[in-house]
Amino acid sequence: MHVLIIGAAGMIGRKLAESFASRALAGSEPKKLTLADVFTPSAPAGFSGDVVTVQTDLAASGAADQLLAERPDVIFHLAAIVSGEAEARFEFGYHVNLDGTRALFEAIRKVHEAEGWTPRVIYSSAIGVFGGGLPDVISDEYIVTPEGSYGTQKAMCELLLSDYSRRGFFDGIGVRLPTICVRPGKPNKAASSFFSGIIREPLVGQEAILPVAETERHWMTSPRSAVQSLRHAMSIDTTLLGSRRNLNMPGLSVTVGEQIEALRHIAGDKAVALIRREPDPIVTRFVQSWPKAFDTKRANELGFTAECRFEDIIRAHIEDELTPKAT
Amino acid sequence: MHVLIIGAAGMIGRKLAESFASRALAGSEPKKLTLADVFTPSAPAGFSGDVVTVQTDLAASGAADQLLAERPDVIFHLAAIVSGEAEARFEFGYHVNLDGTRALFEAIRKVHEAEGWTPRVIYSSAIGVFGGGLPDVISDEYIVTPEGSYGTQKAMCELLLSDYSRRGFFDGIGVRLPTICVRPGKPNKAASSFFSGIIREPLVGQEAILPVAETERHWMTSPRSAVQSLRHAMSIDTTLLGSRRNLNMPGLSVTVGEQIEALRHIAGDKAVALIRREPDPIVTRFVQSWPKAFDTKRANELGFTAECRFEDIIRAHIEDELTPKAT
Ligand SMILES: NC(=O)c1ccc[n+]([C@@H]2O[C@H](COP(=O)([O-])OP(=O)(O)OC[C@H]3O[C@@H](n4cnc5c(N)ncnc54)[C@H](O)[C@@H]3O)[C@@H](O)[C@H]2O)c1
Ligand SMILES: NC(=O)c1ccc[n+]([C@@H]2O[C@H](COP(=O)([O-])OP(=O)(O)OC[C@H]3O[C@@H](n4cnc5c(N)ncnc54)[C@H](O)[C@@H]3O)[C@@H](O)[C@H]2O)c1
Repeated sequence: MHVLIIGAAGMIGRKLAESFASRALAGSEPKKLTLADVFTPSAPAGFSGDVVTVQTDLAASGAADQLLAERPDVIFHLAAIVSGEAEARFEFGYHVNLDGTRALFEAIRKVHEAEGWTPRVIYSSAIGVFGGGLPDVISDEYIVTPEGSYGTQKAMCELLLSDYSRRGFFDGIGVRLPTICVRPGKPNKAASSFFSGIIREPLVGQEAILPVAETERHWMTSPRSAVQSLRHAMSIDTTLLGSRRNLNMPGLSVTVGEQIEALRHIAGDKAVALIRREPDPIVTRFVQSWPKAFDTKRANELGFTAECRFEDIIRAHIEDELTPKAT
Repeated sequence: MHVLIIGAAGMIGRKLAESFASRALAGSEPKKLTLADVFTPSAPAGFSGDVVTVQTDLAASGAADQLLAERPDVIFHLAAIVSGEAEARFEFGYHVNLDGTRALFEAIRKVHEAEGWTPRVIYSSAIGVFGGGLPDVISDEYIVTPEGSYGTQKAMCELLLSDYSRRGFFDGIGVRLPTICVRPGKPNKAASSFFSGIIREPLVGQEAILPVAETERHWMTSPRSAVQSLRHAMSIDTTLLGSRRNLNMPGLSVTVGEQIEALRHIAGDKAVALIRREPDPIVTRFVQSWPKAFDTKRANELGFTAECRFEDIIRAHIEDELTPKAT
């Protein structure tokens, strides 16, 4: 099997590529990995098959055709600019997140029509497609009403994905990932950054800022579960999806207070003391417009899973990011 | 006030333009009407203001900019290719229905950013954004899952409309029109054509074919109510919409049997006898995947209305299409 990952230099893309090299998931190793990104991706250590890394801008004319030259069996499309940037740079957001995706889908369609090739396409969508006055628990039938350009672009691509799949041009699945927590690396400018920061920083003895009340609730999953969901999407029977190709992914509904208590349980009061409260009404308003919880019935029935306790999310972070790897 | 209608040579566009000339709606007459379409629209009789007719392809490069040269206050965007053609001609459907709309929205945004001009944009969407295993009654919060390329394109444009409005580039409203019945003119290839045909043809002594069972139920409105809804969208207070700019429009949920009984009541058994049953499993499957009824709470609260009895829909057709106009 030949797997193409677009957006492979990103946080999730890198972890997804690494997962194909991991012994823990043996048996499912693809023969070949093609890793593409605007930043040259690095090949995952320990992968025994062929790896090709490609530096390319998916939204540039002709780029998508080149990526398909070897007709990969599975295409993960993770390339995107994230919400803060899509909001700040209106044209650029549509260029990358909508036009880039459409260029990919069109390139696939054209090969499909010429040759009958029908790859599986796994698209990383986001709970950012939901916004506004949301119910406490969002069902699989709840209306998509993004409150940002990023969510709008994701929702538009979801619609394209369904239509192209219904037409048989490819076999698509849209995976609406929860907010990833604990996101490794540095804090970024996303309004959601603190959900990771209040865990990640204290665990390494650094201060973190909490801009919202402890009662705020949000829907999260670990990078590990996100990768597992993307991989699970490779093998599910898509005839079960009908033409509803986009799935809310399982996650964990937690309050900030519950996050903090889990941190205390694992790392003690000293870690918790590093969280500094600095209420920010703008961030608070954002957070309050985001999904708090989902009833992910369809995804559950299809075998998608996620952590059930926030402590497990912290432990996954410690294992994956703070524990030296045996080589 | 200067009103621009794009798609003004179409069935609804023509009636909308005529409505601005009608004495029945006096007082709200705009000073100027610009009527644009790929087919040169005709000027409505009796309109006392300026009328300009423009033959233009909205999806052609530069066309949208030209249409905005005089900065209309209200823009009705009705131009589209309809469902059957969008399904048969994949690329063309996306070109006209998605790219044409996006070109218009982009052209408006650019003038807005240069000059601060913020027109009201009224977009004719359709209940074709809903499909698949639908509930008996669709609420305002029900998920959009089109089962065709036409519905996909409409849903994508709705998302754009909301995002552009949220950003303040224009003041948009998406009006999800029910199936129009009785559609005047000849039968067309739309699978929904018979809903109008079984009324329109018998009323003038011609035979009509009924391809589905009398128990099938669908959501309809008259051309007159559709025009009224579009016009009502000119004056509603859009701050009440929040960022949910697309509204399911009121209509009437009727079975084919109820349509026929209304016809009998108005035109007698002789008319009904002209309906010939010719069951078609393909059309039946289509119809069964379409919306049967809506709870249009939001639109009702905003003052949108429609007929409550199918007999009124037939009477509107007789008045508007079969009665010589007093001049
Ligand atoms: N991290 C989250 O919380 C989260 C939640 C839901 C969905 N997602 C989605 O998952 C995907 C991956 O997220 P991530 O957290 O790894 O983001 P990331 O920013 O770390 O990775 C995205 C990658 O896409 C690449 N990219 C951007 N534009 C490109 C282009 N034109 N051509 C090729 N590559 C391009 C970037 O260089 C980057 O490496 C994204 O689609 C994101 O929207 C992320
Ligand atoms: N009739 C219905 O049952 C119904 C229901 C819901 C929504 N709608 C929507 O309402 C709108 C009007 O519907 P209608 O029944 O009058 O359809 P119609 O086909 O009679 O009119 C559409 C008009 O758009 C014009 N057009 C197409 N492509 C164009 C382009 N590239 N540039 C400029 N003009 C172009 C056509 O020439 C036509 O005159 C459409 O957007 C349609 O999708 C119709």
